[in-house]
Amino acid sequence: MPGTPPSRFVYLGPEGTFTEQALRTIPAAEHGARTPARSVPEALDGVRSGDFDAAVVPLENSVGGAVPVTLDELVAGDPLTITREIVLPVRFQLAAPAGTRLPGIRSVAAHPQASAQCRHWLRAHLPDATVVDVLSNGAAAAATADGRYDAAICAPIGADRHRLAVLADNIADHDDAVTRFVMVARPGSPPPPTGDDVTSLAVYIAHDRVGALLAVLTELSVRGINLTRIESRPSGEGLGRYVFFLDCTGHVADARLGEALQGLRRTCADVRFLGSYPRHRWTGSAAERPVPAPPGLSDADVADSAAWLARIRAGQPA
Amino acid sequence: MPGTPPSRFVYLGPEGTFTEQALRTIPAAEHGARTPARSVPEALDGVRSGDFDAAVVPLENSVGGAVPVTLDELVAGDPLTITREIVLPVRFQLAAPAGTRLPGIRSVAAHPQASAQCRHWLRAHLPDATVVDVLSNGAAAAATADGRYDAAICAPIGADRHRLAVLADNIADHDDAVTRFVMVARPGSPPPPTGDDVTSLAVYIAHDRVGALLAVLTELSVRGINLTRIESRPSGEGLGRYVFFLDCTGHVADARLGEALQGLRRTCADVRFLGSYPRHRWTGSAAERPVPAPPGLSDADVADSAAWLARIRAGQPA
Amino acid sequence: MPGTPPSRFVYLGPEGTFTEQALRTIPAAEHGARTPARSVPEALDGVRSGDFDAAVVPLENSVGGAVPVTLDELVAGDPLTITREIVLPVRFQLAAPAGTRLPGIRSVAAHPQASAQCRHWLRAHLPDATVVDVLSNGAAAAATADGRYDAAICAPIGADRHRLAVLADNIADHDDAVTRFVMVARPGSPPPPTGDDVTSLAVYIAHDRVGALLAVLTELSVRGINLTRIESRPSGEGLGRYVFFLDCTGHVADARLGEALQGLRRTCADVRFLGSYPRHRWTGSAAERPVPAPPGLSDADVADSAAWLARIRAGQPA
Amino acid sequence: MPGTPPSRFVYLGPEGTFTEQALRTIPAAEHGARTPARSVPEALDGVRSGDFDAAVVPLENSVGGAVPVTLDELVAGDPLTITREIVLPVRFQLAAPAGTRLPGIRSVAAHPQASAQCRHWLRAHLPDATVVDVLSNGAAAAATADGRYDAAICAPIGADRHRLAVLADNIADHDDAVTRFVMVARPGSPPPPTGDDVTSLAVYIAHDRVGALLAVLTELSVRGINLTRIESRPSGEGLGRYVFFLDCTGHVADARLGEALQGLRRTCADVRFLGSYPRHRWTGSAAERPVPAPPGLSDADVADSAAWLARIRAGQPA
Repeated sequence: MPGTPPSRFVYLGPEGTFTEQALRTIPAAEHGARTPARSVPEALDGVRSGDFDAAVVPLENSVGGAVPVTLDELVAGDPLTITREIVLPVRFQLAAPAGTRLPGIRSVAAHPQASAQCRHWLRAHLPDATVVDVLSNGAAAAATADGRYDAAICAPIGADRHRLAVLADNIADHDDAVTRFVMVARPGSPPPPTGDDVTSLAVYIAHDRVGALLAVLTELSVRGINLTRIESRPSGEGLGRYVFFLDCTGHVADARLGEALQGLRRTCADVRFLGSYPRHRWTGSAAERPVPAPPGLSDADVADSAAWLARIRAGQPA
Repeated sequence: MPGTPPSRFVYLGPEGTFTEQALRTIPAAEHGARTPARSVPEALDGVRSGDFDAAVVPLENSVGGAVPVTLDELVAGDPLTITREIVLPVRFQLAAPAGTRLPGIRSVAAHPQASAQCRHWLRAHLPDATVVDVLSNGAAAAATADGRYDAAICAPIGADRHRLAVLADNIADHDDAVTRFVMVARPGSPPPPTGDDVTSLAVYIAHDRVGALLAVLTELSVRGINLTRIESRPSGEGLGRYVFFLDCTGHVADARLGEALQGLRRTCADVRFLGSYPRHRWTGSAAERPVPAPPGLSDADVADSAAWLARIRAGQPA
Repeated sequence: MPGTPPSRFVYLGPEGTFTEQALRTIPAAEHGARTPARSVPEALDGVRSGDFDAAVVPLENSVGGAVPVTLDELVAGDPLTITREIVLPVRFQLAAPAGTRLPGIRSVAAHPQASAQCRHWLRAHLPDATVVDVLSNGAAAAATADGRYDAAICAPIGADRHRLAVLADNIADHDDAVTRFVMVARPGSPPPPTGDDVTSLAVYIAHDRVGALLAVLTELSVRGINLTRIESRPSGEGLGRYVFFLDCTGHVADARLGEALQGLRRTCADVRFLGSYPRHRWTGSAAERPVPAPPGLSDADVADSAAWLARIRAGQPA
Repeated sequence: MPGTPPSRFVYLGPEGTFTEQALRTIPAAEHGARTPARSVPEALDGVRSGDFDAAVVPLENSVGGAVPVTLDELVAGDPLTITREIVLPVRFQLAAPAGTRLPGIRSVAAHPQASAQCRHWLRAHLPDATVVDVLSNGAAAAATADGRYDAAICAPIGADRHRLAVLADNIADHDDAVTRFVMVARPGSPPPPTGDDVTSLAVYIAHDRVGALLAVLTELSVRGINLTRIESRPSGEGLGRYVFFLDCTGHVADARLGEALQGLRRTCADVRFLGSYPRHRWTGSAAERPVPAPPGLSDADVADSAAWLARIRAGQPA
């Protein structure tokens, strides 16, 4: 029912990963049902089918980049919209059964995003170990506890849950890395504007790529809309054909973002609206400082120009 | 009173020029009072002061270019708006007292716009005659009838009124030249949109001219607004400082032109709205063919994108 | 002969006008022959035919704007190039035969540019006088001395030469007005770059005017070329068809201006190069301050990027 | 030694993957030494250190998208350049020990790119099987032959080498998927232009992202350079900070690409040149048709504009 807060949550499992940690920052989730899914597609399809009210999945990491499967799934099936973002600092540990010592480690289980973010540490401290890709940080801890690998790169919640000893803490190459998660629901009225919102879009452009991408950016730039993220993913039609994922400053209810969206609708092969939601403000050195509006494009300027136009249309002194 | 059609007309005199001819194409003017003014400033000030309801003055000629005094006066004093345009084909005659023969002509009176448009004819047929600038085509005919000059370049109405013989007809170098006149009134609600309208603006840009002029054109281009005229005039602040006069396709009541106007208001040092009015359609080889809207910018596209945005904002299927 | 300085000069006459004054700021002209022409076309044709080495004609005034006939003539016939610019402050006087008093003045002879620049003074001091357009400031003084008009607006040199009394001095509405003159010769190698040069162009664009004009400005903007003048003149093909006259910062020998020129050649219907020549630096409140190069587009940046490219092409460390 | 063809090759192992297959399309590799590396970083570091002359690694897949580790490694250490691209059609098989039947399969080993490309097939035919990420297609086949998993998604070369039975062939959701590999060497003179080349760049832009990315695209667009790929990767400085990987049409030795590169050097925070090399032409429905040059930007247009500029600079008739 519209207006009912979500109470049935699904998230990318297994338990004991950063995604569960992200979900639990949301008060409603503490009181609701929380179900781990085996994959991002499974989580999102659970929302599409109505089995769940909302899904929490990872979208991007400040070091590892986008999570391709999330992007692909957001545009592949029935429409879904993002209703919230959660940004979490990432903290990786090397964990192993008690008694393990670094020189004896031959195999390390890690999610590829995790091993990518600990690359320099691994080269420096475990140059001869084989890094084995596993499905998640939680799975790495579990498989290490089971004795399949000598050690795991995992989150504190994973080492804890699987009773592993922490051989090294904060092993990420960038100690200020963050992961951004999104909560996704079936389409509905977006949350109201807060004055500091993000709007996510998927944009398909036609064949002439320089000109078409220029046109997309010009539609935004002319309205003073800033981009905080741009990712390309193959559209599946061949090398060189892309869908662009854009995160813009502003809310779909804003006049200027409304103008820009209409412009994109007209100039692009297709545009999929993926949601307007409050920006998650976090602290730390990786936190994005808001970009001030360019000259003439503050909210006050926009209001002034709208009032001026109204006077002209009414035949009043401008 | 608003809604009352104008009945007191002033026009750039004297009688017997193209401007009077332009005024008389307007039905209301046939029944109203028609007063010639000695100059464009006098005509426009007569409207500003309330002595007249509307003024007809020349704005540009397809060969001679803009009429600078009209542009300057439109932005110099209290606001005025253009409510109508009239485009007249230009037909120049060489007229002289009966009995005059070409070889005997030593002096030719002509308005500078007229002599500029007959330049090649004059070089070919009267290479040794002195061309004397006079204030108007009507004044050329009058002064020739008075015997001050041997011949005049004038309009048919002028030769006729001053009983001059026509030594040569259609002497303009471009036989399809036209002059565009505008009717100007005190500000008020613009005439309603007709689907084929022109909007005139005066735009002041800041110091960095390439970037600023690019920004102006981008505001128009992004909304699919075409320019049919661009003129620069000195703003009076020194060499290199301009006010630009723009004629755009569309009406201030149109959504897309409204967006573009707001954008200009925000990015330019100043914008003066000079009116939205129906385009005068005339025939002939110099007639401007309408430029089709670029892809994605037809009125249907604009309506489609507005409806799409409304659905998104309402949380309905897009 | 190439390399021989010009010695036979023609200028827009008659004697006693600002144009003669501009010519005489050039040392070579003091020693050469100086011939007045009756019109701008006559002056330029005298250079085209080889009768003269160079012509000096007015191009624009900081208040009255462009001199249309000069622009039109520069693109109408065989190519000519500008080799020098001269900027003169403009000083207008009201001059009349000795004994004349203001209240008795019924007619004032003036060049239209002159009366336009003294408009407010005339309204305030001679509201009832008829202003008669004449061909030049010099002609105004001469005709007043002959008794045809009661007074003249003219240059100091004109009042002086025709022994008129000065009834009012510095009567221009803008006391810092300047006129810009150009010296024009048959095409040849441009004068060498000085580091502070101007390049003049005439650019014809195709039908879609917003897009095409945007493309022209983008070619300049991308290379950090600034515009110091942009004028449109009818191309003669009908309302809405223009040739644009551009003055750009830089010299045709500069790498960046060379790039921009090639870009214009490719994107425009036609480009006519009108010359590269040193900027005339004058003082006074109307003087244009040089616009600093935008970030990344200083001469040093351009040299750095050229050296970087050369290293890459040579396979050297970048 | 410069000019000596490479003879010591390293490639992303293990044996029996598409990468080995790509390497073996190069004649020199058939006669040289071919060494598998355990990872992309290991392969590229082997070239940086001088142990190998060239490395072959995957760059992108038409369905799965970019290979992030390759992008990150290309910009992370000492410069390397791409000297060749190889595009291979992708053909996936489901392989298992002889006697295995579909209904009995509980676990499927697959590289994440492979399982992503066979997603729909897996949902339709093995909805209940667990898909286990492994490091490579070759590793999937090997681990299945070892009995660790019930089946593998792999390349024909992998099934063959590990004596697995093919349960299903051509199981990719897009039957025309291709993978693009690059050969990478230490910096040196690029291969000569062929008339159909690609240039790869990594571009860092400053903080204002819309404006800065617009500037990058404008530098390319103005010179008629087309983009065939644009990928963003986190620059490691926080969410919203990117390095863009661009593939452009043309060769660094071309005049127009040289201009564009200099422009990027001037406007971007940093540019890393990653190589100019012949475009690999392959056939099939996914093959990118070359985009014709926009009007005015063909090679003939570029040559014409260069010749025109040379004439102007020499003072010759244009």
